[in-house]
Amino acid sequence: MRDIDSIAKLAGCFAKMPGVGKKTAGRYAYAVINMPRDEAEEFSSAILDVKDKVRFCKTCGNFTDEDECEICRRRDGSVILVVKEPKDVTAIEKVREYSGVYHILHGVIDPNNNIGPDDIKIKELLVRLDGVSEVIVATNPDLLGEATAMYIAKLLKPFGVKVTRIAHGLPVGSEIEYADEMTLSRALSDRRTM
Amino acid sequence: MRDIDSIAKLAGCFAKMPGVGKKTAGRYAYAVINMPRDEAEEFSSAILDVKDKVRFCKTCGNFTDEDECEICRRRDGSVILVVKEPKDVTAIEKVREYSGVYHILHGVIDPNNNIGPDDIKIKELLVRLDGVSEVIVATNPDLLGEATAMYIAKLLKPFGVKVTRIAHGLPVGSEIEYADEMTLSRALSDRRTM
Repeated sequence: MRDIDSIAKLAGCFAKMPGVGKKTAGRYAYAVINMPRDEAEEFSSAILDVKDKVRFCKTCGNFTDEDECEICRRRDGSVILVVKEPKDVTAIEKVREYSGVYHILHGVIDPNNNIGPDDIKIKELLVRLDGVSEVIVATNPDLLGEATAMYIAKLLKPFGVKVTRIAHGLPVGSEIEYADEMTLSRALSDRRTM
Repeated sequence: MRDIDSIAKLAGCFAKMPGVGKKTAGRYAYAVINMPRDEAEEFSSAILDVKDKVRFCKTCGNFTDEDECEICRRRDGSVILVVKEPKDVTAIEKVREYSGVYHILHGVIDPNNNIGPDDIKIKELLVRLDGVSEVIVATNPDLLGEATAMYIAKLLKPFGVKVTRIAHGLPVGSEIEYADEMTLSRALSDRRTM
Protein backbone atom coordinates (compact mmCIF):
# COMPACT_ATOMS: atom_id res chain seq x y z
CA MET A 1 0.00 0.00 0.00
CA ARG A 2 1.32 3.38 -1.01
CA ASP A 3 1.44 5.70 2.01
CA ILE A 4 -0.67 8.80 1.64
CA ASP A 5 1.88 11.57 1.10
CA SER A 6 0.23 14.29 3.11
CA ILE A 7 -0.24 12.04 6.16
CA ALA A 8 3.34 10.77 5.96
CA LYS A 9 4.63 14.32 5.71
CA LEU A 10 2.68 15.56 8.72
CA ALA A 11 3.77 12.51 10.73
CA GLY A 12 7.33 13.36 9.77
CA CYS A 13 6.90 16.83 11.26
CA PHE A 14 5.49 15.46 14.49
CA ALA A 15 8.37 12.99 14.68
CA LYS A 16 10.72 15.96 15.12
CA MET A 17 9.19 16.71 18.52
CA PRO A 18 11.30 15.46 21.46
CA GLY A 19 10.57 11.86 22.41
CA VAL A 20 8.07 11.31 19.59
CA GLY A 21 8.63 8.09 17.64
CA LYS A 22 7.15 6.97 14.34
CA LYS A 23 4.10 5.33 15.85
CA THR A 24 3.17 8.27 18.07
CA ALA A 25 3.76 10.69 15.20
CA GLY A 26 1.29 8.68 13.15
CA ARG A 27 -1.31 8.85 15.90
CA TYR A 28 -0.90 12.62 16.12
CA ALA A 29 -1.31 12.92 12.34
CA TYR A 30 -4.54 10.92 12.52
CA ALA A 31 -5.73 13.17 15.33
CA VAL A 32 -5.23 16.18 13.05
CA ILE A 33 -7.23 14.48 10.29
CA ASN A 34 -10.08 14.00 12.74
CA MET A 35 -9.91 17.61 14.00
CA PRO A 36 -12.52 20.15 12.98
CA ARG A 37 -11.15 22.30 10.16
CA ASP A 38 -11.03 25.50 12.25
CA GLU A 39 -8.98 23.82 14.97
CA ALA A 40 -6.49 22.61 12.36
CA GLU A 41 -6.26 26.14 10.97
CA GLU A 42 -5.65 27.48 14.46
CA PHE A 43 -2.94 24.84 15.01
CA SER A 44 -1.30 25.68 11.70
CA SER A 45 -1.12 29.40 12.39
CA ALA A 46 -0.09 28.91 16.03
CA ILE A 47 3.10 27.30 14.75
CA LEU A 48 3.95 30.28 12.55
CA ASP A 49 2.85 32.71 15.26
CA VAL A 50 5.33 31.30 17.72
CA LYS A 51 8.13 31.69 15.20
CA ASP A 52 7.04 35.25 14.37
CA LYS A 53 6.42 36.58 17.86
CA VAL A 54 8.69 34.78 20.27
CA ARG A 55 12.20 36.13 20.67
CA PHE A 56 14.84 36.34 23.39
CA CYS A 57 14.74 38.93 26.15
CA LYS A 58 17.66 41.30 25.53
CA THR A 59 18.65 41.10 29.20
CA CYS A 60 18.13 37.57 30.51
CA GLY A 61 17.76 35.57 27.29
CA ASN A 62 14.40 34.06 28.23
CA PHE A 63 11.60 33.78 25.68
CA THR A 64 9.46 36.89 25.42
CA ASP A 65 7.22 38.61 22.91
CA GLU A 66 8.58 42.02 23.89
CA ASP A 67 12.00 43.63 23.82
CA GLU A 68 12.69 42.89 27.47
CA CYS A 69 10.72 40.27 29.40
CA GLU A 70 8.31 41.13 32.19
CA ILE A 71 10.50 39.56 34.88
CA CYS A 72 13.50 41.71 33.94
CA ARG A 73 11.36 44.84 33.77
CA ARG A 74 9.55 44.44 37.08
CA ARG A 75 11.63 42.47 39.53
CA ASP A 76 14.53 43.02 41.88
CA GLY A 77 17.68 42.83 39.74
CA SER A 78 20.15 42.40 42.58
CA VAL A 79 19.89 38.60 42.59
CA ILE A 80 20.38 36.63 39.36
CA LEU A 81 19.47 32.95 39.12
CA VAL A 82 21.33 31.17 36.31
CA VAL A 83 19.63 28.28 34.50
CA LYS A 84 20.30 26.17 31.46
CA GLU A 85 17.01 26.59 29.60
CA PRO A 86 13.82 28.67 29.53
CA LYS A 87 11.77 25.74 30.84
CA ASP A 88 13.83 25.79 34.03
CA VAL A 89 12.48 29.31 34.63
CA THR A 90 8.93 28.00 34.30
CA ALA A 91 9.69 25.27 36.86
CA ILE A 92 11.18 27.70 39.38
CA GLU A 93 8.43 30.31 38.88
CA LYS A 94 5.87 27.65 39.81
CA VAL A 95 7.34 27.42 43.33
CA ARG A 96 6.57 31.15 43.84
CA GLU A 97 9.45 31.66 46.22
CA TYR A 98 12.05 33.35 44.09
CA SER A 99 11.60 37.07 43.45
CA GLY A 100 14.83 37.97 41.65
CA VAL A 101 15.68 37.84 37.97
CA TYR A 102 17.08 35.08 35.77
CA HIS A 103 19.86 34.45 33.31
CA ILE A 104 19.40 31.73 30.72
CA LEU A 105 22.59 30.10 29.45
CA HIS A 106 20.89 28.26 26.57
CA GLY A 107 23.03 25.22 27.15
CA VAL A 108 25.88 23.97 29.29
CA ILE A 109 29.56 23.52 28.63
CA ASP A 110 29.95 20.12 26.97
CA PRO A 111 33.47 19.42 25.64
CA ASN A 112 32.45 16.10 24.08
CA ASN A 113 30.04 17.92 21.82
CA ASN A 114 32.36 20.87 21.23
CA ILE A 115 30.26 23.27 23.28
CA GLY A 116 32.63 25.64 25.05
CA PRO A 117 32.01 28.65 27.34
CA ASP A 118 31.71 30.90 24.28
CA ASP A 119 28.91 28.83 22.80
CA ILE A 120 26.54 29.50 25.69
CA LYS A 121 25.43 32.86 27.14
CA ILE A 122 28.14 33.38 29.74
CA LYS A 123 29.53 36.66 28.36
CA GLU A 124 26.00 38.05 28.58
CA LEU A 125 26.01 37.26 32.30
CA LEU A 126 29.26 39.12 32.94
CA VAL A 127 27.90 42.43 31.64
CA ARG A 128 24.97 42.22 34.08
CA LEU A 129 26.95 42.13 37.31
CA ASP A 130 26.70 45.85 38.16
CA GLY A 131 24.75 46.22 41.43
CA VAL A 132 24.27 42.47 41.73
CA SER A 133 24.72 41.03 45.24
CA GLU A 134 24.27 37.32 44.50
CA VAL A 135 24.35 34.91 41.56
CA ILE A 136 22.58 31.60 42.23
CA VAL A 137 23.76 28.90 39.81
CA ALA A 138 20.87 26.51 39.20
CA THR A 139 22.18 24.36 36.37
CA ASN A 140 21.16 20.71 36.61
CA PRO A 141 22.87 18.58 39.29
CA ASP A 142 24.47 16.35 36.66
CA LEU A 143 28.02 16.16 35.35
CA LEU A 144 27.78 18.93 32.74
CA GLY A 145 25.63 21.13 34.97
CA GLU A 146 28.16 20.84 37.82
CA ALA A 147 31.09 21.57 35.55
CA THR A 148 29.36 24.62 34.09
CA ALA A 149 28.46 25.83 37.59
CA MET A 150 32.06 25.48 38.67
CA TYR A 151 33.29 27.36 35.61
CA ILE A 152 30.90 30.24 36.29
CA ALA A 153 31.84 30.41 39.98
CA LYS A 154 35.53 30.65 39.08
CA LEU A 155 34.86 33.26 36.41
CA LEU A 156 32.82 35.49 38.73
CA LYS A 157 35.27 35.36 41.62
CA PRO A 158 37.30 38.45 40.55
CA PHE A 159 34.06 40.49 40.39
CA GLY A 160 33.52 40.07 44.14
CA VAL A 161 29.95 38.92 43.71
CA LYS A 162 28.62 36.14 45.96
CA VAL A 163 28.05 32.96 43.92
CA THR A 164 25.85 30.21 45.39
CA ARG A 165 24.75 26.81 44.11
CA ILE A 166 21.32 25.23 44.65
CA ALA A 167 21.40 22.49 47.30
CA HIS A 168 21.82 18.81 46.50
CA GLY A 169 20.26 16.11 48.62
CA LEU A 170 17.39 13.72 48.96
CA PRO A 171 14.21 14.78 47.16
CA VAL A 172 11.39 15.62 49.57
CA GLY A 173 9.09 12.62 50.00
CA SER A 174 11.66 10.14 48.72
CA GLU A 175 12.98 7.13 50.59
CA ILE A 176 16.60 6.71 51.65
CA GLU A 177 16.41 3.03 50.69
CA TYR A 178 15.96 3.93 47.03
CA ALA A 179 18.30 6.91 46.82
CA ASP A 180 21.28 6.52 44.52
CA GLU A 181 24.77 6.54 46.07
CA MET A 182 25.83 9.91 44.68
CA THR A 183 22.74 11.66 46.04
CA LEU A 184 23.06 9.97 49.41
CA SER A 185 26.72 10.91 49.60
CA ARG A 186 25.90 14.59 48.85
CA ALA A 187 22.99 14.53 51.31
CA LEU A 188 25.39 13.37 54.01
CA SER A 189 28.27 15.73 53.27
CA ASP A 190 25.94 18.74 52.94
CA ARG A 191 24.08 17.96 56.19
CA ARG A 192 22.87 20.92 58.30
CA THR A 193 22.65 21.49 62.07
CA MET A 194 19.05 21.31 63.28
CA MET B 1 5.01 35.78 35.31
CA ARG B 2 2.60 36.35 32.46
CA ASP B 3 2.64 33.40 30.09
CA ILE B 4 3.63 34.30 26.55
CA ASP B 5 0.37 34.11 24.59
CA SER B 6 1.69 32.57 21.41
CA ILE B 7 3.54 29.80 23.26
CA ALA B 8 0.53 29.05 25.45
CA LYS B 9 -1.71 28.89 22.39
CA LEU B 10 0.57 26.50 20.51
CA ALA B 11 0.92 24.32 23.61
CA GLY B 12 -2.88 24.26 23.79
CA CYS B 13 -3.01 22.90 20.25
CA PHE B 14 -0.47 20.18 21.00
CA ALA B 15 -2.43 19.27 24.12
CA LYS B 16 -5.29 18.17 21.87
CA MET B 17 -3.18 15.29 20.55
CA PRO B 18 -4.00 11.91 22.11
CA GLY B 19 -2.11 11.25 25.34
CA VAL B 20 -0.40 14.65 25.39
CA GLY B 21 -0.55 16.43 28.76
CA LYS B 22 0.24 20.03 29.64
CA LYS B 23 3.93 19.42 30.30
CA THR B 24 4.56 17.48 27.09
CA ALA B 25 2.59 20.05 25.09
CA GLY B 26 4.88 22.74 26.48
CA ARG B 27 7.96 20.76 25.49
CA TYR B 28 6.64 20.40 21.94
CA ALA B 29 5.94 24.15 21.76
CA TYR B 30 9.51 24.88 22.82
CA ALA B 31 10.75 22.45 20.17
CA VAL B 32 8.87 24.46 17.54
CA ILE B 33 10.46 27.69 18.80
CA ASN B 34 13.86 26.10 18.36
CA MET B 35 13.06 24.80 14.87
CA PRO B 36 14.52 26.45 11.79
CA ARG B 37 11.93 28.76 10.26
CA ASP B 38 11.49 26.67 7.09
CA GLU B 39 10.77 23.51 9.09
CA ALA B 40 8.12 25.36 11.05
CA GLU B 41 6.56 26.60 7.81
CA GLU B 42 6.56 23.05 6.48
CA PHE B 43 4.92 21.82 9.70
CA SER B 44 2.30 24.55 9.53
CA SER B 45 1.32 23.79 5.96
CA ALA B 46 1.45 20.00 6.49
CA ILE B 47 -1.41 20.40 8.95
CA LEU B 48 -3.59 22.24 6.44
CA ASP B 49 -2.52 19.90 3.66
CA VAL B 50 -3.76 16.88 5.52
CA LYS B 51 -7.14 18.53 6.04
CA ASP B 52 -7.31 19.58 2.39
CA LYS B 53 -6.18 16.38 0.72
CA VAL B 54 -7.15 13.47 2.92
CA ARG B 55 -10.66 12.11 2.55
CA PHE B 56 -12.42 8.78 2.90
CA CYS B 57 -12.31 6.12 0.18
CA LYS B 58 -15.83 5.90 -1.25
CA THR B 59 -15.71 2.11 -1.06
CA CYS B 60 -13.91 1.00 2.10
CA GLY B 61 -13.89 4.21 4.17
CA ASN B 62 -10.11 4.25 4.63
CA PHE B 63 -8.13 7.48 4.33
CA THR B 64 -7.08 8.29 0.79
CA ASP B 65 -6.15 11.31 -1.30
CA GLU B 66 -8.07 9.98 -4.27
CA ASP B 67 -11.71 9.08 -4.91
CA GLU B 68 -11.17 5.40 -4.24
CA CYS B 69 -8.11 4.09 -2.41
CA GLU B 70 -5.36 2.09 -4.06
CA ILE B 71 -6.25 -1.09 -2.17
CA CYS B 72 -9.85 -1.03 -3.36
CA ARG B 73 -8.81 -0.29 -6.94
CA ARG B 74 -6.14 -2.96 -7.27
CA ARG B 75 -6.84 -5.87 -4.98
CA ASP B 76 -9.05 -8.95 -4.92
CA GLY B 77 -12.46 -7.76 -3.74
CA SER B 78 -13.87 -11.18 -2.87
CA VAL B 79 -12.57 -11.07 0.71
CA ILE B 80 -13.34 -8.10 2.97
CA LEU B 81 -11.54 -7.60 6.27
CA VAL B 82 -13.52 -5.43 8.68
CA VAL B 83 -11.62 -3.18 11.13
CA LYS B 84 -12.48 -0.45 13.56
CA GLU B 85 -10.07 2.26 12.41
CA PRO B 86 -7.71 3.21 9.56
CA LYS B 87 -4.67 2.56 11.74
CA ASP B 88 -5.71 -1.11 12.01
CA VAL B 89 -5.28 -1.32 8.24
CA THR B 90 -1.74 0.00 8.56
CA ALA B 91 -1.00 -2.67 11.19
CA ILE B 92 -2.36 -5.51 9.07
CA GLU B 93 -0.69 -4.27 5.87
CA LYS B 94 2.66 -4.42 7.66
CA VAL B 95 2.32 -8.20 8.01
CA ARG B 96 2.14 -8.50 4.18
CA GLU B 97 -0.03 -11.59 4.30
CA TYR B 98 -3.47 -10.30 3.53
CA SER B 99 -4.27 -9.60 -0.11
CA GLY B 100 -7.99 -8.78 0.04
CA VAL B 101 -9.72 -5.46 0.64
CA TYR B 102 -10.83 -3.72 3.83
CA HIS B 103 -13.88 -2.14 5.35
CA ILE B 104 -13.40 0.49 8.03
CA LEU B 105 -16.23 0.83 10.55
CA HIS B 106 -14.92 4.08 12.04
CA GLY B 107 -15.88 2.95 15.52
CA VAL B 108 -17.58 0.09 17.33
CA ILE B 109 -21.04 -0.28 18.79
CA ASP B 110 -20.90 1.21 22.29
CA PRO B 111 -24.32 1.51 24.00
CA ASN B 112 -22.84 3.32 27.03
CA ASN B 113 -21.74 6.16 24.78
CA ASN B 114 -24.86 6.05 22.63
CA ILE B 115 -23.05 4.65 19.61
CA GLY B 116 -25.43 2.28 17.84
CA PRO B 117 -25.05 0.25 14.61
CA ASP B 118 -26.25 3.26 12.59
CA ASP B 119 -23.47 5.46 13.95
CA ILE B 120 -20.71 3.35 12.45
CA LYS B 121 -20.24 2.26 8.82
CA ILE B 122 -22.18 -1.01 8.86
CA LYS B 123 -24.75 -0.11 6.18
CA GLU B 124 -21.82 0.67 3.90
CA LEU B 125 -20.58 -2.90 4.39
CA LEU B 126 -23.94 -4.43 3.43
CA VAL B 127 -23.96 -2.83 -0.03
CA ARG B 128 -20.54 -4.34 -0.76
CA LEU B 129 -21.47 -8.02 -0.41
CA ASP B 130 -22.06 -8.78 -4.11
CA GLY B 131 -19.50 -11.37 -5.22
CA VAL B 132 -17.91 -11.51 -1.78
CA SER B 133 -16.99 -14.98 -0.51
CA GLU B 134 -15.74 -14.12 2.98
CA VAL B 135 -15.93 -11.32 5.52
CA ILE B 136 -13.20 -11.45 8.18
CA VAL B 137 -14.18 -9.44 11.26
CA ALA B 138 -11.00 -8.03 12.82
CA THR B 139 -12.39 -5.67 15.44
CA ASN B 140 -10.35 -5.62 18.66
CA PRO B 141 -10.61 -8.64 20.97
CA ASP B 142 -12.18 -6.54 23.73
CA LEU B 143 -15.76 -6.26 24.97
CA LEU B 144 -17.00 -3.72 22.43
CA GLY B 145 -15.02 -5.28 19.59
CA GLU B 146 -16.51 -8.70 20.32
CA ALA B 147 -20.05 -7.35 20.58
CA THR B 148 -19.67 -5.49 17.29
CA ALA B 149 -18.25 -8.60 15.62
CA MET B 150 -21.18 -10.64 16.85
CA TYR B 151 -23.65 -8.05 15.62
CA ILE B 152 -22.07 -8.05 12.15
CA ALA B 153 -21.99 -11.86 11.98
CA LYS B 154 -25.70 -12.02 12.79
CA LEU B 155 -26.53 -9.27 10.32
CA LEU B 156 -24.65 -10.95 7.47
CA LYS B 157 -26.08 -14.43 8.04
CA PRO B 158 -29.13 -13.97 5.70
CA PHE B 159 -26.76 -12.92 2.90
CA GLY B 160 -25.16 -16.36 2.86
CA VAL B 161 -21.63 -14.96 3.02
CA LYS B 162 -19.02 -16.72 5.16
CA VAL B 163 -18.17 -14.61 8.20
CA THR B 164 -14.97 -15.38 10.15
CA ARG B 165 -13.35 -13.85 13.21
CA ILE B 166 -9.60 -13.38 13.75
CA ALA B 167 -8.19 -15.94 16.19
CA HIS B 168 -7.74 -15.28 19.90
CA GLY B 169 -4.95 -16.89 21.86
CA LEU B 170 -1.51 -16.40 23.32
CA PRO B 171 0.61 -13.76 21.60
CA VAL B 172 3.62 -15.27 19.84
CA GLY B 173 6.71 -15.02 22.04
CA SER B 174 4.69 -14.53 25.23
CA GLU B 175 4.84 -16.74 28.31
CA ILE B 176 1.94 -18.81 29.59
CA GLU B 177 2.89 -17.84 33.14
CA TYR B 178 2.03 -14.21 32.48
CA ALA B 179 -1.04 -14.65 30.28
CA ASP B 180 -4.30 -13.32 31.67
CA GLU B 181 -7.06 -15.82 32.44
CA MET B 182 -9.38 -14.78 29.62
CA THR B 183 -6.67 -15.17 26.99
CA LEU B 184 -5.54 -18.50 28.42
CA SER B 185 -9.10 -19.76 28.47
CA ARG B 186 -9.60 -18.75 24.81
CA ALA B 187 -6.25 -20.26 23.86
CA LEU B 188 -7.35 -23.56 25.38
CA SER B 189 -10.86 -23.69 23.94
CA ASP B 190 -9.67 -22.64 20.47
CA ARG B 191 -6.84 -25.24 20.43
CA ARG B 192 -5.99 -26.89 17.10
CA THR B 193 -4.90 -30.42 16.16
CA MET B 194 -1.24 -30.55 15.23
